[in-house]
Amino acid sequence: MKKISKTIAASVVRPRPAHSHKGNYGRVLIIAGNHQFGGAAIMNAQAAVQSGAGLVTVATDLTNKTAIHARLPEAMVVNYRDNLAAYVKKADVILIGSGLGDERDVLETCFSAISSEQTLIVDGSALSMMAAFDLALPDASQLVLTPHQMEWQRLSGVAIAEQVNQETNQAALQRLAPTESNTSANNKTPALVLKSEATQVYLKDDVYQLTVGGPYQATGGMGDTLAGMIAGFAAQFAPTSSAVLAAVYCHSAIAEELSQKAYVTLPSKIAEKIPAYMKKLSEE
Amino acid sequence: MKKISKTIAASVVRPRPAHSHKGNYGRVLIIAGNHQFGGAAIMNAQAAVQSGAGLVTVATDLTNKTAIHARLPEAMVVNYRDNLAAYVKKADVILIGSGLGDERDVLETCFSAISSEQTLIVDGSALSMMAAFDLALPDASQLVLTPHQMEWQRLSGVAIAEQVNQETNQAALQRLAPTESNTSANNKTPALVLKSEATQVYLKDDVYQLTVGGPYQATGGMGDTLAGMIAGFAAQFAPTSSAVLAAVYCHSAIAEELSQKAYVTLPSKIAEKIPAYMKKLSEE
Amino acid sequence: MKKISKTIAASVVRPRPAHSHKGNYGRVLIIAGNHQFGGAAIMNAQAAVQSGAGLVTVATDLTNKTAIHARLPEAMVVNYRDNLAAYVKKADVILIGSGLGDERDVLETCFSAISSEQTLIVDGSALSMMAAFDLALPDASQLVLTPHQMEWQRLSGVAIAEQVNQETNQAALQRLAPTESNTSANNKTPALVLKSEATQVYLKDDVYQLTVGGPYQATGGMGDTLAGMIAGFAAQFAPTSSAVLAAVYCHSAIAEELSQKAYVTLPSKIAEKIPAYMKKLSEE
Amino acid sequence: MKKISKTIAASVVRPRPAHSHKGNYGRVLIIAGNHQFGGAAIMNAQAAVQSGAGLVTVATDLTNKTAIHARLPEAMVVNYRDNLAAYVKKADVILIGSGLGDERDVLETCFSAISSEQTLIVDGSALSMMAAFDLALPDASQLVLTPHQMEWQRLSGVAIAEQVNQETNQAALQRLAPTESNTSANNKTPALVLKSEATQVYLKDDVYQLTVGGPYQATGGMGDTLAGMIAGFAAQFAPTSSAVLAAVYCHSAIAEELSQKAYVTLPSKIAEKIPAYMKKLSEE
Repeated sequence: MKKISKTIAASVVRPRPAHSHKGNYGRVLIIAGNHQFGGAAIMNAQAAVQSGAGLVTVATDLTNKTAIHARLPEAMVVNYRDNLAAYVKKADVILIGSGLGDERDVLETCFSAISSEQTLIVDGSALSMMAAFDLALPDASQLVLTPHQMEWQRLSGVAIAEQVNQETNQAALQRLAPTESNTSANNKTPALVLKSEATQVYLKDDVYQLTVGGPYQATGGMGDTLAGMIAGFAAQFAPTSSAVLAAVYCHSAIAEELSQKAYVTLPSKIAEKIPAYMKKLSEE
Repeated sequence: MKKISKTIAASVVRPRPAHSHKGNYGRVLIIAGNHQFGGAAIMNAQAAVQSGAGLVTVATDLTNKTAIHARLPEAMVVNYRDNLAAYVKKADVILIGSGLGDERDVLETCFSAISSEQTLIVDGSALSMMAAFDLALPDASQLVLTPHQMEWQRLSGVAIAEQVNQETNQAALQRLAPTESNTSANNKTPALVLKSEATQVYLKDDVYQLTVGGPYQATGGMGDTLAGMIAGFAAQFAPTSSAVLAAVYCHSAIAEELSQKAYVTLPSKIAEKIPAYMKKLSEE
Repeated sequence: MKKISKTIAASVVRPRPAHSHKGNYGRVLIIAGNHQFGGAAIMNAQAAVQSGAGLVTVATDLTNKTAIHARLPEAMVVNYRDNLAAYVKKADVILIGSGLGDERDVLETCFSAISSEQTLIVDGSALSMMAAFDLALPDASQLVLTPHQMEWQRLSGVAIAEQVNQETNQAALQRLAPTESNTSANNKTPALVLKSEATQVYLKDDVYQLTVGGPYQATGGMGDTLAGMIAGFAAQFAPTSSAVLAAVYCHSAIAEELSQKAYVTLPSKIAEKIPAYMKKLSEE
Repeated sequence: MKKISKTIAASVVRPRPAHSHKGNYGRVLIIAGNHQFGGAAIMNAQAAVQSGAGLVTVATDLTNKTAIHARLPEAMVVNYRDNLAAYVKKADVILIGSGLGDERDVLETCFSAISSEQTLIVDGSALSMMAAFDLALPDASQLVLTPHQMEWQRLSGVAIAEQVNQETNQAALQRLAPTESNTSANNKTPALVLKSEATQVYLKDDVYQLTVGGPYQATGGMGDTLAGMIAGFAAQFAPTSSAVLAAVYCHSAIAEELSQKAYVTLPSKIAEKIPAYMKKLSEE
């Protein structure tokens, strides 16, 4: 198994070309936050914006609008029950699922609207709903799944105790590839970020082990910030597989830095430090 | 009487084990904040999150939701009038009462739903309602009461002037033990944090005197932050009695540090400094 | 004319006695902020809390509640149209008028409820309404008026050009003393903080000139922060006349310090620096 | 083509005269933010306030009120559907259009109410609506347009590829002068801030090239902060043409400074740094 090294991350987070505009850095749509879990949408969005995504729109339960804008005026906010398909079609990268609860209609509308040109990241409640309602992934261009161990068990059927077995996970992952891509299934096998105290990333050919980070990250919302970073990185950097590795690395590397002076590293504090960390990394 | 020393606090706040996840650090449910006193719920929650609780949910008057998320996206927010018993049952630690006003139904629903496996911390308005409506404590595993002197007078019948007498307080405290535990009353005698300018903590066998802190803490909301810290510490550290001592110590020790540069130390500023203070303490 | 010196301010802002609690630092009720000017209530309250008032309650248009709590969980928030008289009666210091618009009922309810044991500070729209509706000051224990020059012209009938004449201002001020105190009018003559680029404070026997501060303070909301500081200081320090001088001094002295690194010194930034400035001052 | 030099900016941002008050620094009305794009109004307002405008009022969709006040109590907030003409008439500088969506009534009400004594800045959605509905500029005293390249194409008919041609842009700009000023069209030709990765400013006689800033600014909301700065500068400094140049310079110069330690420079972070940058500039 390979390590997710700082070298990999630094090869992704390069200085921006002098001649570029926000259109070059992608449109991200975040579909997250039901009426109780609006904080997840905030953490998603804050991480995506701080990562440098060109434009970030949050489709959410409308009762979350004011809190999002109070923290992050850079994000646009729309009602996820109103015309969601149109917002999905305009995005380059869609992140769905953090704090989404059991909003099945929202999930199905999103999956139906996605085209084969777009990147789709599926997190949290969306993964649980996929398992509960037996929903298949749509035929997006790039697919990324970000379950923690229990969500992976639900989605893949691989029990937590068996998740140490890479081949089992890889086989399960291939079965999750969208059926439309059956003839060339390999291409559409999703990337998997399997979150645990020792997070691993499964890409097409390799499995990568995260070796930074620590128990100061064991607090609610940590995954929401990571998902937002993955979306922000995927909007800016290609290929998506490398963007995912870099986001996973940076997320925990920032936490590790913060942990020098903090017993627990809150997700919103990690988000605030993204621009400074990316700047340092881009100069290495 | 023993002092609540830094040594005691440092023996509680130890470095986290490398292999751990948010499930190891507890689910905290905060039931607080009526339609006027939402700030109390915010200060509870901010303190619990910054202390490192694994997951924090706030059950509150719904008009407080946006302000809570605008300050603290890490917390989940639910309506305390809707299905409260279910949220109580899912928690490891329940803190009830800060800014709760006269929401008697909320208090009774909570007390009815608590099981003997859970830790219950009772603060502020909940203590006053217990006195006013003659409500008994439920048979939780661990019980902590956090009155100021007037609330203690109301609850225990011990007049403020007589609260200097430890034995009187201890006797009153034993009478407050849940009736279900009558046969082994001693085990269920609550811990008492008796807040004043010279706060004391009554545990089963001993009384402890706080010797840090000062008049810069004499401002509204100070107790809400302390209650949130006690909840956050109780979710992470055992036994609960030690967690309470450590939280009480850290709260005032942080205030004392801030007071080097502040005439008054606001509760929300104390909360911001918790992770840094706990980190330093964990290295001693 | 005397100068408002740092020596005066330092004689007021003394170290707090070791044995004291929030009850010693006063209950402040702020009645401010109609549906458009909620920012004024926020700035009032932030300044009062940061100044060290024991407890701060804001009575306001309810649409301002969430923004107040999002910035300042230490404040309680109530509806100024619901049971206002009861809140007035419970306060030690009442500040009314910042951003109050034309809420005449609110003003009259407040004036009717005030007793001769309380301190009343009248600011902004409340002063304009007193002039427009010919309302007399109630017979509070201590009265403070904080008009800018145009408001003083409206209230006193003294044209701005004539406000250089101290005796004219003093005579007008005596006419504003509450009629109930006619037999000993001198005692109830209000203190006057006449705000301009060269603010003056009229007390019973003397007129004081402010000599710190500058044009970096020429921005909206500056007076709301000052009014909140006066309320916070009046709640803690006696006599009220000295508390007013100290608050006026500290407000502009903080701005002057900030102006070393800021072209304009925003009211909310001044509020944040109050505890640090008061600490330094208390050590002189 | 001339450069927008630091010298130009420093000649505008001079130390404030000692004797001045907020009336000297202008009343700014910001008309921005429909129900989805409230963040634009926040970024406008934050930039105008931090730039030192005397008074800032935001006319917006009312659902944006709480988020604005939670971030910026210094701003007043009114409903842009209620009595807008009256608010327009009271302002010295009006900025309209950021995040305004398709609120055509709001735009037309504003244009109808503006007098020939006022400064009007037209941004974002207002420019697109002018193109879509063939609306002419009103006869304000000073007119400033702040399109990005696509908005300029829509408004002027000059395709992006042809926007390198200064004379084409200038001719198009003259055609946009308000018809009421036909007899002396030159006087009313708007100033044009043509935003791109190499922003240019067209004034009556000259075209200026911005040479600070960089790709770290390529993120959503950057233009909203710039528009707010232009409004704030135009409220304080004359002539308007110089104020525009100085605002454009300062906006990107602050971003350039921040970029030393940030991969992406968020609009709200730029706004926070305005007072410090203007102070330094005023001392050069």
